Amino acid sequence: LDEVTFDPALIAIDWGTTSARAYGIDAVGRVMASRSAELGVQRVAEGRFPQALDALLGDWRKFPVPRIACGMIGSRQGWIEVPYVPCPADLDAFGNALVRTPGGELLVVPGALCRDADGVPDVMRGEETQLVGAMVADDERVLAVLPGTHSKWAVVDEGRLLGFATFMTGELYAVLLDHSILGRMANRRYLASGGALADAVEASAPPVETSRGDAAFRAGLHRGWGMHALAHDIFGARTLALANELDAVCVPEWLSGVLIGHEIAGARRWVEAWGVSANRVRVIGAEALAGRYERALACAGVVTDRAANDAAATGLWRIAQRAGVVHTCEPARGPS
Amino acid sequence: LDEVTFDPALIAIDWGTTSARAYGIDAVGRVMASRSAELGVQRVAEGRFPQALDALLGDWRKFPVPRIACGMIGSRQGWIEVPYVPCPADLDAFGNALVRTPGGELLVVPGALCRDADGVPDVMRGEETQLVGAMVADDERVLAVLPGTHSKWAVVDEGRLLGFATFMTGELYAVLLDHSILGRMANRRYLASGGALADAVEASAPPVETSRGDAAFRAGLHRGWGMHALAHDIFGARTLALANELDAVCVPEWLSGVLIGHEIAGARRWVEAWGVSANRVRVIGAEALAGRYERALACAGVVTDRAANDAAATGLWRIAQRAGVVHTCEPARGPS
Repeated sequence: LDEVTFDPALIAIDWGTTSARAYGIDAVGRVMASRSAELGVQRVAEGRFPQALDALLGDWRKFPVPRIACGMIGSRQGWIEVPYVPCPADLDAFGNALVRTPGGELLVVPGALCRDADGVPDVMRGEETQLVGAMVADDERVLAVLPGTHSKWAVVDEGRLLGFATFMTGELYAVLLDHSILGRMANRRYLASGGALADAVEASAPPVETSRGDAAFRAGLHRGWGMHALAHDIFGARTLALANELDAVCVPEWLSGVLIGHEIAGARRWVEAWGVSANRVRVIGAEALAGRYERALACAGVVTDRAANDAAATGLWRIAQRAGVVHTCEPARGPS
Repeated sequence: LDEVTFDPALIAIDWGTTSARAYGIDAVGRVMASRSAELGVQRVAEGRFPQALDALLGDWRKFPVPRIACGMIGSRQGWIEVPYVPCPADLDAFGNALVRTPGGELLVVPGALCRDADGVPDVMRGEETQLVGAMVADDERVLAVLPGTHSKWAVVDEGRLLGFATFMTGELYAVLLDHSILGRMANRRYLASGGALADAVEASAPPVETSRGDAAFRAGLHRGWGMHALAHDIFGARTLALANELDAVCVPEWLSGVLIGHEIAGARRWVEAWGVSANRVRVIGAEALAGRYERALACAGVVTDRAANDAAATGLWRIAQRAGVVHTCEPARGPS
């Protein structure tokens, strides 16, 4: 990036629970630069959000341009609580509901709220903006997944967010491995039936060869999308290891498969009500986890496409545009 | 208990992961006395089982009678590993497979192993003995549940254990409350929308009134036995609390309902293959948790009966009898 010519039209911030990333966006909507800091909402002391913003922006503070943010920064634990927008919600609904922080430092995008068939609410903050940014011109009704600690599945119809469902897949995986007997199976050497395995289960946890890990992941997927009771299915990590039918080092891969398989099966059932095919899914997210979901969906015979990177930045740009916050130029098409 | 007349014919030990309980049983199979110690398998240093047994028995060591034990004491982490008996397994199968500890201190009952429809193994150690002890003379095909950290559902046909399924319900409940965002919802005051709730969510955790807790438990049950994806359903603890539709203090009751509801629905589906009605269930276990399952099953329209206390002691007695380990007398029926 040539610092001399960097002249953003908008500063867009994806401000989550653990970290924040700021994007400098030019007048035609292109991300020119980004910077991030471990200054997520959870890590900022009460009332210190202006200071956190300064630290994140650094010398970008000098640009006299609009700033817009999405994510947990708009939650009760964030800088300012922005009420959820109910689904269905389109770009106007988000653009019309921006809330300014008390000192005028930032515009904050609301999260979205929907209710499932039982009337139980579901919520997102940040993913609504990624969904806005992940849509392309000729999309009709799109089923999308945003893998993560709390994975979100969403249906978006010509830019309108119709509904979504959260699955605590990533958090379940973490708490089961870190705090349950399944994690102890994966970590302890007593399982080793022979020297080879015992050597492999060192505390330093050398990587499992890809093929063995992949087989365990696939076996877990098949277990998971049978959609028996999850509390039963996951116990297989223990029993298969006890029976020497699953290497202890492969327990994490197997468990990941069960949980993601369960999520995919649950999401496919959930989507039946929405009149959209569950056989095509747009995957929104960062490399490793998104790739894992793509592998899982391919196993299930689902066709996937991957949203462009920086969907949050694109979504923030689109919302700011619709809200009339930024002045836009015609994109430069070719050498000028 | 009159120490002078205490003259056991058998010492029977239910020796689990965290604690051990020894029963003194007379020549007609009645439990005359018991004593327990926090000397579960997990708490005994490697190789120190003889000393742990001495500590548990105390002055009972003087009785020159057979000793028999069930539970995790027969696991790989226990005193001696006793191979699982495959299902179907009757009293003879268990009685014929007793294993003696190297010093001859104890006979140890094997656990049981079965495979589910996918061929994935399931295991129990200790519950097989409780099941043996919980059967009564005119039982035909019985569906039983043993609530716990790892709940077991089992089908027993005229004393033969046909098959069973484990649900990690209790462990999921504990790790979710202790380590996930759902527990933080339950514990943190920021959720409080007003003074009354804030006062109620003190660290000292005053009890929720029964009626409010019961309503949350029932709401959770209904959520759970819809059998959507569990990873989605439990997220309702967060969203309902955020939407002020569930008091934060009631999150544990609601979550307990979801998990138990999910278990019951999964077990009812599981039992379809066994030709036994899911509308009648024998509950085996200790007061508080067994009572919670009885309430849940009643909500589901299931008739329950409760096994007599000390099912493990009765089971150990029956297995010892069948194995020819104890000499039995005719039971004394009335004054002698």
